[in-house]
Amino acid sequence: MTDLDKESVALHARLHGKLEIKSKVALANSRDLSLAYTPGVAQVCLEIAKTPARVFELTIKRNTVAVVSDGSSILGLGNLGPEAALPVMEGKAVLFKEFANVDAFPICLATQDADEIVAIVKAIAPGFGGINLEDISAPRCFAIEARLQDIGIPVFHDDQHGTSIVVLAALLNALQVTRKDFASCTVVFSGSGAAAIACSRLILSCGASGLLPKVGDIILCDSKGIVHRNRTDLNPAKRELAQATNRTGRTGGLAEALRGADVFIGLSQPSLVTPAMVRTMHQQPIVFAMANPVPEIMPDAARAGGAVVVGTGRSDFPNQINNVLAFPGVFRGALDARAMVINAEMKVAAALALASAVREPTPERILPEPLDKQLAYRIGEAVASAARRTGVCRT
Amino acid sequence: MTDLDKESVALHARLHGKLEIKSKVALANSRDLSLAYTPGVAQVCLEIAKTPARVFELTIKRNTVAVVSDGSSILGLGNLGPEAALPVMEGKAVLFKEFANVDAFPICLATQDADEIVAIVKAIAPGFGGINLEDISAPRCFAIEARLQDIGIPVFHDDQHGTSIVVLAALLNALQVTRKDFASCTVVFSGSGAAAIACSRLILSCGASGLLPKVGDIILCDSKGIVHRNRTDLNPAKRELAQATNRTGRTGGLAEALRGADVFIGLSQPSLVTPAMVRTMHQQPIVFAMANPVPEIMPDAARAGGAVVVGTGRSDFPNQINNVLAFPGVFRGALDARAMVINAEMKVAAALALASAVREPTPERILPEPLDKQLAYRIGEAVASAARRTGVCRT
Repeated sequence: MTDLDKESVALHARLHGKLEIKSKVALANSRDLSLAYTPGVAQVCLEIAKTPARVFELTIKRNTVAVVSDGSSILGLGNLGPEAALPVMEGKAVLFKEFANVDAFPICLATQDADEIVAIVKAIAPGFGGINLEDISAPRCFAIEARLQDIGIPVFHDDQHGTSIVVLAALLNALQVTRKDFASCTVVFSGSGAAAIACSRLILSCGASGLLPKVGDIILCDSKGIVHRNRTDLNPAKRELAQATNRTGRTGGLAEALRGADVFIGLSQPSLVTPAMVRTMHQQPIVFAMANPVPEIMPDAARAGGAVVVGTGRSDFPNQINNVLAFPGVFRGALDARAMVINAEMKVAAALALASAVREPTPERILPEPLDKQLAYRIGEAVASAARRTGVCRT
Repeated sequence: MTDLDKESVALHARLHGKLEIKSKVALANSRDLSLAYTPGVAQVCLEIAKTPARVFELTIKRNTVAVVSDGSSILGLGNLGPEAALPVMEGKAVLFKEFANVDAFPICLATQDADEIVAIVKAIAPGFGGINLEDISAPRCFAIEARLQDIGIPVFHDDQHGTSIVVLAALLNALQVTRKDFASCTVVFSGSGAAAIACSRLILSCGASGLLPKVGDIILCDSKGIVHRNRTDLNPAKRELAQATNRTGRTGGLAEALRGADVFIGLSQPSLVTPAMVRTMHQQPIVFAMANPVPEIMPDAARAGGAVVVGTGRSDFPNQINNVLAFPGVFRGALDARAMVINAEMKVAAALALASAVREPTPERILPEPLDKQLAYRIGEAVASAARRTGVCRT
């Protein structure tokens, strides 16, 4: 256990959790009680029963997000179950509040059955303005999220889309730094879990719809090697991506994938990449090595292999690619606009706002600091505006 | 709409709900972020995975209660659905926090299917130290609660048990004022919903187990009249009670039930009782008329009929019989003792603590003020002590 680990456990033990509920009303006398509770509250209930949209005006719904997890894929730790997920979900709620004044509450589920999770999220939705799915393992997370897109409030699996937004922002600025462009770029992903799939999908869908230039090519690698159309061991998400990626039909492992590639995006396992592999990449390599806590390649090693821009998931190196840069602002914007979904336009708007928060990107600074307390509001405005433009807001 | 109604709606519209989430940790620098969230939080997750009981130490679980409703029976307003239930559940959470420092969060469900509600409560239980079921209509509420008694945290339907505890406390002090005793008392209930059933059950079960003296008799009346063994239209809860109540086999309506009775407990409809009916009761009648907002009989009318002690659910008359006197303290005690259920001993302990909070009961004062901020802690101590004594605490 590191000193940081020990200190974190001690902090949690001292606080007994990181959240509390605060009442916005004072209860000094019986009048206060009559207004906040019975008999006065009855009229508030009747107003909502008469005009359902008033639930956004008269209750906490408009600013409240459920952080829902089944504990099946906690951080990089694996399937530890719902109780062990709670500290992460509380932490997420802390970040929501601190960075975007969103009231988020953890809901940790004692089931890992996709049908049950879908049913439960639908059932608890009336009290929430949005749902942040978290640490739900792939491939279940794809179907669960997809089946929840029509419930009238945004459902956003942060491990997929939060990551994809931050990676896209980092990529846009890294391309600017290296004067590469999307159209001639080959992007290699290591890992084909929720995050890598979502990043690939976002880049492809934005290229197809004209929101971004079309990418040169994407090559996905999983633990069996390069994903290609002739593989018979792919889950539906990978099978779908096999159709739109790896257009030259490359086979082999990560080393073969990296040869001549412009960008490496690691969302997988520690220490899979060597300086020699980076050296085989196209000129001015971009390396995002986000395995936690040990990256696919350490920044020094990546630079030794010739990488020009290097990012990791860690706070102790430059260019930390951290979801906290995106999700508070994304939900701030979605809640403010009363968006019913978080669509590709909103994600790209978030990525562009995030990228533009760094005025002049350099190899050592392609993303803003996670602790910038204005950032979420800037991203929120861009997201809300994209939501309104694309007509996904509750009227 | 009364002035109070208007003011309550305006208050809710101004606040946009009555709760917010507060973070207990500061995020001033990246060290703070590393302790509250990644990478430090990973060790906290691992500790819980290794030693599940530490979830009570390291997370919000130990002090957090879900206030769960399906909106099927909101106050006296009926089945208005989950969105319209939210202002009540938020209000409940405000009271939990204000009176007992319990962090309660509303969960309003878009289903009224008993099986689904049971499954959802089981699934969300990992993040909570207790479940307060609220405003779920009878008879579904009985089965739902019964099926949730083995989930390892207390599940307490406040409309049943909160009411039964406060009614029992009021009754104990009213009996003292009128020098009546349980053993010779006939108690008539008007209404046979969740509250009346739970009050009857608590009085009967405590008599059977020796926690309280055996009551003389109980007579329940529903909308069809007196509940007796020969009726064929009773739901299972009433059928069960028909075996243990109305021992003389009385038939007829509320007027017939009240003849010679000592206590009237109304949990039903406005204006069902007249002064003339009270006059037919045994000497020194006790009348608790709790229909809301208009009681079964107004206090003046009850006194005109000879009632010596009169209580209502309203704050504008003496002797307000209000659940807020019980539930915050009950959960305070259950959480502090880490009780796995809230059993009859704990309920009676709560009622006795509540009754004893009035040092010298008088006809105008059989219960303490709802705004007494020490009360919940006194009740909590009694409840925790009863939980430990009866061996229902997590070790």
